[in-house]
Amino acid sequence: MATNIFGGFKEYSVAEFFKKNRQMLGFSGKIRSLTTLVHEYLTNSLDACGEAGIHPEIEVWVEEVEKNNKYRIKVRDNGPGIPEKLLGKALGMMLAGTKFHRYVQSRGQQGIGAAGCTMYSLITTGQPVNVVSKYDGKKISCKLGIDFKANKPVLTEIVREECPIEEHGLEVEGIFGDVKYEKSAQGVGEYLKRTAIANPHAKIIFNSPDGEKFIYPQSVEELPEKSEEVKPHPLGIGANDLLDIAKGAKEYTKLSAMLQNEFTRISLNKVKELQELTPEVDLNMKPTKLSWEDAEKLVLGFKKIKWIAPATDSVVPVGQRQIEKSLENILNPEIVYVTKRPPRIYRGGIPFIVEVGIAYGGDINKEGKGGVIMRFANRAPLLFDSGGCAITQTAKNIDWKRYEIKKFEEYPVAILVNIASVHIPYTSAGKQSIASEDDIAEEIRNAIMEAGRHVQKHLSGKRREREKSTKKKAIMKYVGQISADMAELADQKDAKAAIKGDLEKMISERFE
Amino acid sequence: MATNIFGGFKEYSVAEFFKKNRQMLGFSGKIRSLTTLVHEYLTNSLDACGEAGIHPEIEVWVEEVEKNNKYRIKVRDNGPGIPEKLLGKALGMMLAGTKFHRYVQSRGQQGIGAAGCTMYSLITTGQPVNVVSKYDGKKISCKLGIDFKANKPVLTEIVREECPIEEHGLEVEGIFGDVKYEKSAQGVGEYLKRTAIANPHAKIIFNSPDGEKFIYPQSVEELPEKSEEVKPHPLGIGANDLLDIAKGAKEYTKLSAMLQNEFTRISLNKVKELQELTPEVDLNMKPTKLSWEDAEKLVLGFKKIKWIAPATDSVVPVGQRQIEKSLENILNPEIVYVTKRPPRIYRGGIPFIVEVGIAYGGDINKEGKGGVIMRFANRAPLLFDSGGCAITQTAKNIDWKRYEIKKFEEYPVAILVNIASVHIPYTSAGKQSIASEDDIAEEIRNAIMEAGRHVQKHLSGKRREREKSTKKKAIMKYVGQISADMAELADQKDAKAAIKGDLEKMISERFE
Repeated sequence: MATNIFGGFKEYSVAEFFKKNRQMLGFSGKIRSLTTLVHEYLTNSLDACGEAGIHPEIEVWVEEVEKNNKYRIKVRDNGPGIPEKLLGKALGMMLAGTKFHRYVQSRGQQGIGAAGCTMYSLITTGQPVNVVSKYDGKKISCKLGIDFKANKPVLTEIVREECPIEEHGLEVEGIFGDVKYEKSAQGVGEYLKRTAIANPHAKIIFNSPDGEKFIYPQSVEELPEKSEEVKPHPLGIGANDLLDIAKGAKEYTKLSAMLQNEFTRISLNKVKELQELTPEVDLNMKPTKLSWEDAEKLVLGFKKIKWIAPATDSVVPVGQRQIEKSLENILNPEIVYVTKRPPRIYRGGIPFIVEVGIAYGGDINKEGKGGVIMRFANRAPLLFDSGGCAITQTAKNIDWKRYEIKKFEEYPVAILVNIASVHIPYTSAGKQSIASEDDIAEEIRNAIMEAGRHVQKHLSGKRREREKSTKKKAIMKYVGQISADMAELADQKDAKAAIKGDLEKMISERFE
Repeated sequence: MATNIFGGFKEYSVAEFFKKNRQMLGFSGKIRSLTTLVHEYLTNSLDACGEAGIHPEIEVWVEEVEKNNKYRIKVRDNGPGIPEKLLGKALGMMLAGTKFHRYVQSRGQQGIGAAGCTMYSLITTGQPVNVVSKYDGKKISCKLGIDFKANKPVLTEIVREECPIEEHGLEVEGIFGDVKYEKSAQGVGEYLKRTAIANPHAKIIFNSPDGEKFIYPQSVEELPEKSEEVKPHPLGIGANDLLDIAKGAKEYTKLSAMLQNEFTRISLNKVKELQELTPEVDLNMKPTKLSWEDAEKLVLGFKKIKWIAPATDSVVPVGQRQIEKSLENILNPEIVYVTKRPPRIYRGGIPFIVEVGIAYGGDINKEGKGGVIMRFANRAPLLFDSGGCAITQTAKNIDWKRYEIKKFEEYPVAILVNIASVHIPYTSAGKQSIASEDDIAEEIRNAIMEAGRHVQKHLSGKRREREKSTKKKAIMKYVGQISADMAELADQKDAKAAIKGDLEKMISERFE
């Protein structure tokens, strides 16, 4: 008996896992799957351009190839391209990439995205994707598939050519099944529009299946500041993280030196302070000898010390002026306000910034829908899973009445929330929803409230204006009669016009 | 420049991936993390007992060990235990297990759960878990950790002993940080209560941190039918699945034979029908030669054929009587109705059954909350992520007014929905929410509507009863007066009581 139960015990690859659980990568539902595909490629293109310091120019084609929910998708960028030795792994191997191990802000972070797209092509149409990469004067074209059992890329029909070094970029083209194009709030069109909003430095062109061409031109000159790779901040870091760093820090002979070098904001003075707080931990020990107990004590010590906040250059916001400009361009509102707040830290000493833009009036509820919430994470729009997202939950729980917005859903108000961080805590690999970490939710709340107060000022100003103008009108109604009466009483009928003029002037000055 | 960008390109293990993305395994928030830990262990215990044909007796201890959100969790079952050679992999290696490759209904299916718990212990308290397994007369005790870089288990302090063969089972005990016990709708207590509801064949004991002991006794004698490992059904299977099966089917020389053997419901006659529908595909070819194009044609052919539904024994429902009994026990309602519907199929020919129990009145909104939705997947309660779950979404979109329930949220109505399948399409590895696959959502909708109609009958009966009784009361009010008047008119004052009796009898009969 017993042996039978365990007869089927097997190990399997991460590629097989995601092939069976494709919904975890955002491939559930035809419309969402199409948006996911474009999202993954676009994200990689924007990140690559960002790292290489290139103004992104990205063109996207979506074209129906068969009525049977099959579409050809092509994305071409002017990024640096990918060298041949990494091309396969970057696009055809799960859990491989430049981003996972590094402490740097980027849209992608999990090393799954593009390989997930290749997987989706294989499991829905059986076809590998076509790739053309121009990198450093070398052009390589190939078909790219995945060996699922081994989680390895399979390159075929490789053609290598020389190309001018000024030509660089990546082009990926695939035929995907079980997808559908729709002009909806969750479709590719809306996705690209919102990407353009949060990336005014990029030029994005979209060729839709209907034959339309949408061009979102570059609208600001300067590139976003390049996000720097940073060292972790001691505040809030877990014993586990500290141990991980210590175990890997074989080059140090003393823990005290490792702390100063491997963390931001730990100076010699801070080490001394730490030693006083944790006299039982020997800071002269070799880092690799650190025990869990000592790591726990040090982490508790960290929490008692007053630290300087982490450096701002590790997280790069979209920028106050950029968001203002974007919101003005697309919504044409009465008023726009964008917050500019310092970075905060959450679990594990991870810095993040929340930016909130708010817009009121104008074109916002032209289509009868108020209370628009536009969610972004590291400039990438989030269109799905809004129910479980910290941004939506926080925004809906705001007591909007305090800001003269009686019903958020019905008022012509739109908010844009962007969270920038080296590590966004997504609720799933689909990367469409941000987990409600307390520190993040609180900061979102405060930022929205700050933005709300500005709208409230504007609206209460408008309300007073309206009240004043109602009073003024009420008084003005009697001016004609009063002037006539006064002129008659004073027996100076000719003065009626003059008296009226004076009265009107008085009243107008009063209600200025 | 270009080289720098790719300098950090690395591969990493699935254990490192989930260590960094623990929220994907359900470890986000202290309360949820505690429930997730208990859920994973309990799920494994129930599955193991189910496979071995044992009446489960599972005891759970949760105990606070430090104020600092650290708890000791122990789960002990009377299952078959785990043999030494698989113990490490089962509890300390991601993507390994008996369930992933098999086409059989079980709670667990991803081969991550228990290894995820070991991971959580390591990253929150630095401690391995203590394991005692008694399997086939052999007892092994050890400490179990994970080498994250390699995704391999690490066993230490191994002690091997003999034990009587009648003694069998698994005990896992660990100390976990970043967790919190709370008596809430999402706490461990509620989780275990709901598990008991859906598993009346199991005995579950819970020792809470408050020192309380909750015992949920076994309430039905018979074990659930054992879920059989099944072959896939041709209806709805994808070209990709068919190709996968064909490539692995090296033992067949003819595709036609493979189709008959590797699928359920494909008979020789059906193969002939298929051949007529797809004359261009050579069914005599070797399966390993099957091309994507031919696979696509065969799949289109499958869709044109009338098939017998998949065998019922592949999905095991909780059972009509069992759910009825459970709902009566805990809710003490006026009326209970449980559906008994045939299995359906969704994507890839995967059979599933939806069971809906509905209960009205009784203790349901004792605490002022109506419209209770209890979600289950293969008998495991789902407590989190309700917003994105197909069950919640479907239940809330039902037009409850049609069933005499004016406001679902306020009426004393509770529904229990269990989905049983060999492969539940969870939205994330946290396994708390079911993706809105069209076929599944539709079947949930139909099942709830069926249940709703029964409540509607009951309620409209009650309403008519109430209306009748109002009428009866109105007429009865006059009986005294009429009897007296009639007696007086007939000049037989003594007959008043008799007349009144007759009249009352007449009226009562009329309104019976």
